[in-house]
This record gives sequence, C-alpha cells and structure tokens, in this order.
Amino acid sequence: MQGLMMDAPLLVSSVLEHAARIHGTTEIVARTAEGGIHRTTYGETHDRAKRLAKALARLGVKPGDRVGSLAWNTHHHLELFYGVSGSGAVLHTINPRLFEDQLVYIVNHAEDSWICVDAATLPIAEKLAPRTPGVKGWIYMSVDPEPPKSSLALLSYETLLAAEDADYDWPQLDEKQASVICYTSGTTGAPKGVVNTHRSTILSALVMSTADMIGGYRSGAREVVMPIAPMFHGNGWQMVYTAPLSGHGLVLPGRNFEPDKLHEIMAAEKVTMAACVPTVWMMLVDYMDRTGLTLPSLRAALVAGTKPPRSLIDALEQRHGIEVAQAWGMTEALGVTKCALPPGLADAPYEQRVEQKLRQGRVAFSTKLRIVDDAGQPLPHDGLTFGHLQARGPLIVGAYLKQDAPLADGWLQTGDVAKLFPDGTVEIVDRSKDVIKSGGEWISSAAVENAAMGHPAVAQAAVIGIHHPTWQERPLLVVVRRPDKDVSAAELIAFLRPQMASWWVPEDVAFVEALPMTATGKIHKVTLREQFKDMTASGGSDGLRAAG
Amino acid sequence: MQGLMMDAPLLVSSVLEHAARIHGTTEIVARTAEGGIHRTTYGETHDRAKRLAKALARLGVKPGDRVGSLAWNTHHHLELFYGVSGSGAVLHTINPRLFEDQLVYIVNHAEDSWICVDAATLPIAEKLAPRTPGVKGWIYMSVDPEPPKSSLALLSYETLLAAEDADYDWPQLDEKQASVICYTSGTTGAPKGVVNTHRSTILSALVMSTADMIGGYRSGAREVVMPIAPMFHGNGWQMVYTAPLSGHGLVLPGRNFEPDKLHEIMAAEKVTMAACVPTVWMMLVDYMDRTGLTLPSLRAALVAGTKPPRSLIDALEQRHGIEVAQAWGMTEALGVTKCALPPGLADAPYEQRVEQKLRQGRVAFSTKLRIVDDAGQPLPHDGLTFGHLQARGPLIVGAYLKQDAPLADGWLQTGDVAKLFPDGTVEIVDRSKDVIKSGGEWISSAAVENAAMGHPAVAQAAVIGIHHPTWQERPLLVVVRRPDKDVSAAELIAFLRPQMASWWVPEDVAFVEALPMTATGKIHKVTLREQFKDMTASGGSDGLRAAG
Repeated sequence: MQGLMMDAPLLVSSVLEHAARIHGTTEIVARTAEGGIHRTTYGETHDRAKRLAKALARLGVKPGDRVGSLAWNTHHHLELFYGVSGSGAVLHTINPRLFEDQLVYIVNHAEDSWICVDAATLPIAEKLAPRTPGVKGWIYMSVDPEPPKSSLALLSYETLLAAEDADYDWPQLDEKQASVICYTSGTTGAPKGVVNTHRSTILSALVMSTADMIGGYRSGAREVVMPIAPMFHGNGWQMVYTAPLSGHGLVLPGRNFEPDKLHEIMAAEKVTMAACVPTVWMMLVDYMDRTGLTLPSLRAALVAGTKPPRSLIDALEQRHGIEVAQAWGMTEALGVTKCALPPGLADAPYEQRVEQKLRQGRVAFSTKLRIVDDAGQPLPHDGLTFGHLQARGPLIVGAYLKQDAPLADGWLQTGDVAKLFPDGTVEIVDRSKDVIKSGGEWISSAAVENAAMGHPAVAQAAVIGIHHPTWQERPLLVVVRRPDKDVSAAELIAFLRPQMASWWVPEDVAFVEALPMTATGKIHKVTLREQFKDMTASGGSDGLRAAG
Repeated sequence: MQGLMMDAPLLVSSVLEHAARIHGTTEIVARTAEGGIHRTTYGETHDRAKRLAKALARLGVKPGDRVGSLAWNTHHHLELFYGVSGSGAVLHTINPRLFEDQLVYIVNHAEDSWICVDAATLPIAEKLAPRTPGVKGWIYMSVDPEPPKSSLALLSYETLLAAEDADYDWPQLDEKQASVICYTSGTTGAPKGVVNTHRSTILSALVMSTADMIGGYRSGAREVVMPIAPMFHGNGWQMVYTAPLSGHGLVLPGRNFEPDKLHEIMAAEKVTMAACVPTVWMMLVDYMDRTGLTLPSLRAALVAGTKPPRSLIDALEQRHGIEVAQAWGMTEALGVTKCALPPGLADAPYEQRVEQKLRQGRVAFSTKLRIVDDAGQPLPHDGLTFGHLQARGPLIVGAYLKQDAPLADGWLQTGDVAKLFPDGTVEIVDRSKDVIKSGGEWISSAAVENAAMGHPAVAQAAVIGIHHPTWQERPLLVVVRRPDKDVSAAELIAFLRPQMASWWVPEDVAFVEALPMTATGKIHKVTLREQFKDMTASGGSDGLRAAG
C-alpha cells in the first residue's frame, strides 16, 4: 500500500532557500582569497546563488555538467555549493593540495566543463590548463570584478553575476541526481570520485543537525560555526549545509590557516564552534599559549581526520575551557558518527570523559556499522575485539565515478580497522592495510606509533610489518629522531615494552632522516614498506637484518 | 547525472533497530492500561516488535494490510508502531474518543484486518465488532496473557508473542509505502484518512530531532520525554519516533491523564520534557498549585493543538520554572514548526519571549508555508497581514485515503488563517471557516473569543458571523456565563471595546446554557451557526433580532 504524502524531493537548493526565508539576515563573515574580510548574509547569498545559476545557464552549463572549484573557505566558494548544485549541475570540489598529475587526472576524469578559481589557486589553474583540454573556461572569483593578468582568458565571476537578476526558481530535480563530486586521494592507485546525491547531502545535514551531534548543541544564531576544515574536503565537514539549515552564524577563514589569522577572526566574530584536524588545533593552542590570548566565546572544538593526542584534549579542555568532540567520517561516508557523550558519561569525571573523547564518536542514525574478520565474518561489538570496519546506509558511497567501490555483501569496506562498543562508540585502531598480522593476531601500527611518539627524542614514527618466517609479519618501528636528541633502538624498545602486550613490541627500530609523505600530509607507508621490503625478522631485537 | 550513493530506503524499523543497537538499555517506563507500572528498554522493545512482526505474519497479515490499534500511551502501543509498520503492514491508530458511528466508518473505510485493544478500549471494540464485519479478529494487549471474558473471541497479544522468537530481519520496503494511517475528524463531513509513508515519518522525526526543535534540547538519555498527547493523535507528536531515534528516556502515561497520576509518574521518572494540549497543562498546574507539589526535573513543556492562554505560560514559566514551547502541526502535516526562539530573543526580557511563545513556532526545514487571500494570491510574510495558510513539502499530505485532499497549485490548504513573520514565525489567527468576513476585511473569531474569555463572568465563548445587509457578515458573541456570575451584553461589549479595532467588536451577545461540542472537545460552530442562521445584524448592538 503506497502512502499518500506529497512527492517532494530532498534538494540542496532548499537549504539555502530555507535559510534566506527565515534567517535571511544572519551573518556570514569570510576572509577573502586576497586576505580581506567580507560580510554577507544568507539572504544575499541566496540571491547571488540564484544569479550564479542563471549565469551558468547562460554559459551553456546544462544539468549534470560538472563545474569545478579550486578554492578555499570563502563566501564565493559557499555560493558555488548552492548555485552550481541547485541549478542541477554538479560541483566538483578540487583539492588544490594534490600533486599536479593528480589534479590533471581528476579534472579530466570528472570532465569538468568550467572551473572557478581565485587568487590563491590561479597559479595552479595556469599549470593545469594546457593539460585539461576539456575545460571550456576559467572563472575568476574575487570581490574585485577585474581579473588579474593571466595566461588564461579569465571570466570575471562578479561580472557574470552582475549581468543577472535573482528572479529564478530552483529546478525540482530528482533527489538521486549528483550534487557534489569529491575525489579521495588514497595512498595507492588513482584518486577516486565520490558522487554525492542531493538526497545523501540533505540526509547527512539533517543527521548532523540533531541535538545529539554535540553536547549542548545550541539552536540557530546562538551558535556561530567555523569550518576550518577545507570546503573541498567533505564540504567543510558538511558545515556548508548544516549552518544555513540551522541558521547558525557562519565564519569562513579563507585560505589562511595560520594560527594568528585564525585566532583573529575567531575572536572578532565570537565563533562558538570550529572544526579542523588535530594539527591545526595544536598550532592554535600553541599560539594562544605563547601569546596569552584566549577565545572566550569558543565552546566546542570539533576534531576528526586523525586521532587527537591526549595532550591536545587536555590543553583545549583544561587550559582553555573548550570542549573537544571527536567524530569520524570519510569522503565516502559523511555524517557517520555523532559526538554527544553517551548516557551517563556527560557528568562523569574528566578522566572518563577524555577516554571517550579519544574515540571517534558514536554511530549516528541512518548508518549501520559493523566489524568483520579477514574472512568477512561479523565480529562482536564488545569494545575489545577489532576488525575491518564496514558501513552501510543512505550516506555511504555505493560506487566511485566510473569505477566500483570496495563493497562486500552491500557493505562499504572503509579500509579502517576499528573496535565497536555496545553503545555505538567507534574506536579506529588502524588502517586495514597498515595493521600488522603476527601469528594470526593483529597489531595496530597506529597504537605502537602513538606510544613511540611519547618518547621525547622521537620526532616522527611509523610502524610497518616485515616478513617473519614463523609469525608471517612482525612490526618494525621506523623513527625520525629530533635534531637535538638521541635515543638507541634498545632504549626505545625498553620504553615501549611496559606500554603494550609483549608480542606488540617492535622487532627492531630503524632510524631514518625523513619519512615519505603523501600530498595530504600522511606517512606514505606503501613507499616505506617498499624501502624495507627486503628485511626479514627472525625473532629477537637483533634478529633484524637487511637482506640483499 | 545520477549520484552514486547507496540505495538505502528510509524505514520506520531502522529507528528502533538503531535504538536497540546503541542505547538498548535506556529505559521505557509505561503505565499499563490496567494502571500498573511496566518497565522495559529499547532493546527489549525491539525484540518484542520483531516477535510481533512474526506473529502477524502467522495470522496471515500481509504487506499493506491494515492493523488497527484502539489504545492509549502504553508500551504495547509503542510495540505496534514498529512491529506493524516495520513488517510492511500499516498501523491504523484509531482515536477511541470518536463517536461510535465515526469509529465504525473509519474501521470499515481503512479496511482494518485485525485490531489490537486493551482494558481501556475493549468496551468500545465490543460495540464496534457487529458493525465491522471486515475485521478478522481482535487482539487483547495486557501484561496478563489471559484475556478477560468478552463477547469477542479475543486473541492474547502476549500468547502470540510468546510463540515467536526475535530471529527476524526487517524487510527492505519501498520508503514510499504506507506506515501509519490516522484519521482526522473535521467538524464537517466524514473523517479523512491521512496515510503517512515510511519516508515522511523518518524525515519528520529527523527534523524534530534537530537542536532547533526546542531551546536547550539535550542529547540522548539526558532528556526523558513523555508524550501525554495520545499516540493515536500524530503518534504522540512523533515522540514514538524521536525518542528512540535520539535515545531519550521515554515515559508513557497509559490512559491516565488525571493530574495526580500524571504528576506521580513525571516526578518518579524525572521527566524533563512533556507534550500535551493546554487543557492538560492547566489541570496539572492547578493540581500542583493546590497540593504544593512540584516537578523539579521538568524543564520543558511542549504545547500545541490550541493556543495556550497567557496565564498558563506565566504559571509554568514563572511559578514552576518550566519553559513553554509552542509548536504547530496537524495530522496532515507533522513536524512543521520548531520551537527554539529566533535569534536574539532567547536572552530577551520575559515579556518579549512570552509574545513569541504565544505564537506557534517557526517553520522547520523541509516544509514551505505561505498565506494567500481568497483568490489564492500570495500575501506578504510581514507579521501583520493574515491569510489562508498553505503548506508544501515531504511531510505534507498529498491526498486522503480514497479521497482528494484540498490542494491548490500543489499546496495543502490547511484550513487555518495565519500571519507569517519574516523570521518564519507562524501565528494562527483562526480557522478559515470561522473567520468573519466583514466589509471585505477579516475578523478573527478566535481573537475575539480569547478576549471575551478574559471576563470573569464568561465560562465559554464562541464568535460566529451572522448576515448583515451592508457588511456581508458581522460578529455575534455567544456566551455561557459562569453559574455564580452575571454579566449583560452591554457590559461585555464595553469590556471588549478597548481591546480591539472598533469594527471587530461583536454586533451583539447571545447568552446560552451550553455550546455544542465535537467528539474531540472543540466547539461545533457549524451547529452554532445553524442555531443562529436566521439572525440578521443591522448595525448597533441593539440591531440584532431573531428572524422568523
């Protein structure tokens, strides 16, 4: 029996339309690509997004066409999320941090028709253009309508908008049409395109707007949020959608992630909640500690991407009175966990709360998570067992652009190894490809690395598996020492031994000058394993020998 | 271009499945139909809902079949919402307060196959059975597995469940399939069936779980919610879905809406948020005032259905420290407004906040509201103009069961007259059919009635339009005096004159012994207009004369 409710699709355009209708005067404050401050509102942004939609149509952009963006967190970029997706075209948010070859690959692979750039990304565009012949033109976004001199024939974004009015009705699209494409740059293979739908975007934004998202989540303009996390990466952790949906004040830091610039705009605009990776929080805390400056309005620090060190949580919570909330997601799965502490824990002593904050949140409504062993058999959610993390639901990728996604029985294989707790808490233990399989049991390379980082002489640490004739693999710790400090392999092993099960203790330690890194700042373990592939462990810390 | 996210339907079963998985031990406390207290959890409820789904299949219930419920707010009724809808059958929540003829009509019209009853509703079922031959059988819900003596061959709900185990996978239904049917009993014509979909139910629950729903909305089990509003009426204002979705503690008052019983369970279970119509809140406040009892845990009183009097808001907020939040919805449109105060008002002085609380909330994401004049032309959202309120979106009814809904250009005509404010605030002014049209302008009968109710001698008041040769209609005030008080027509007119525009002042006052009432406790104005249909106003308070 069919139900009889109105057939109304879930559309990205409806978020900004709603914002303009009921909190049209709520402010958006953005640092421009040039470094200035720009003030606008949801009402004005909605008007400009409609004018953009008309301008794109005039340029010949058709529903389904891809429009690229090479931009940081600016008001122009925000307009693209609505003007492009809302019109039925597809926004491809290009990560300007990728290597040139990767950028060329994804622009051509996504078949971008037009690309919007700004002062920060024009040099990249100029390099890409000769190798991306499918791109019909480049649009330059700046508060100044006059584009700079360039090897490209730039169209002016402001001039395009000035030629249009806001008399435009958003088209009623199929909600399963594409809204935004974002490529993941794994450590192996070519980048893979995640094609979000209008439906998945709206559902994710709703899930992330529930009171459960974060303890004490406030309504409307009482919360002023700032995505420091780039908009080209998970849409600024979905804040480009959740902020207008809920009517939060919105502050955009532009391309400046330097702590002084971040602090300046956060303090001036009384930001209450900001989101970024631990590294940026660490720089900000360090800056505040050095200068004695504070952020009295900031009440919540959202963190994801990598597990924050305990010291960062202590600094934010205890020195600065800012609540830390950790969530987990990936480009393939946005809005998967929520941060509010589980029942009973919100009023528990600090030590217990920190233990929870070191984990990656609790599974949010609409997504199902499970862990499985190597044979794909489900494992218990007991907070002890760990296995390959899999996800299923309307927010989870079903396929990559022109390529299959790694599905097993309808579940996405996230590539992470995790523990799941009875209350839905997720604890990421390692990457599946980095876990070390020793005698049928798993060793978390991340856990051993974190322990090694606790030694004062260790600047960087990576743990990889090396071949062992009996145990299949044994862990090797690869360390970059701090320039002014020294430590021996035996000392490090002795340091680690009391911190973990004896069979987790690395077989040996190799010292190197530098670790190979990816474009997004992660250790490139594939290269590292290649570097040490001829090593074999035979037991005992002196059993390590360079082969060949 | 199609997006590439997983094709996962939004299903009612997923709410309870989620609750059982991550807050399975959170408690549900319910008063049974017999008056006792029953304690259960989301985990146990999920198990029992699955056993119910299997029991229904064993009885021959097929996807799409209607299963009726004649029940109040009990744990059994909660199980029906998931066991019936989750299995693909359709729950028809029957309002036991309807007149017998209406009950017979809706059971036959919905083609209910089985009906679940309890100690409170069995006498009704016994009367209906001879006139509802399509019903295959009656299931008796009680903690006691032995059904009582009855003219009906009752099946025992507990015995049916005891025969099943919980080894059951919820079917993956089309999200546009029907989940729950609820009939509206208008004051004219036969009741009309609203057929919710799984999709509309989940979207409504998500919208109502956002932080914006109510100021200071807390996460998970820190909120203990109690729908006093009956589950057969808008699913207990959607709390049967929002509570498990968010993991709130859930308290169900059974059939007892007597203030002492309500207070007892609210105090014992530390309810933090409860929802009901103003009348019930008034009885509860009166009870607390008389006994000196308090509700220290209760922080929020949700109110809807009718505008609460100012005195109730003052009593709850100022005497009892309970925040009042008013929302608006109808069976045809659940989850339409949210209660959190608009930007800037949350910290405003009490007088300003009360003004807002006397309105019906702000439009929530996903629904569009507009007001139109008699010709269907949209009117401004300026907080001054009022017009016929229309709604559109995925939570709004598109058609009634076997009958068209009153749509105009794709908008539902709600039958209400309202003002809309620039910040999305809704102020219901009157029912469209009750508004009095005088000289081309509209007079709100509800506003005049509220003013008249302020006179100490007035027990009940109704305002209707009577024919006027020049002005088309003029208002007539019909009053029931308090038994111990007296007041004349002239005195009442003089009392009203300073409170409203001169042309809103009633033409005359008629005193009656009693007003005609509907089954749901509203004044039956159709009957009243019939009673006074031969009256004509010719201007001046003594211009009224009984015709014929």
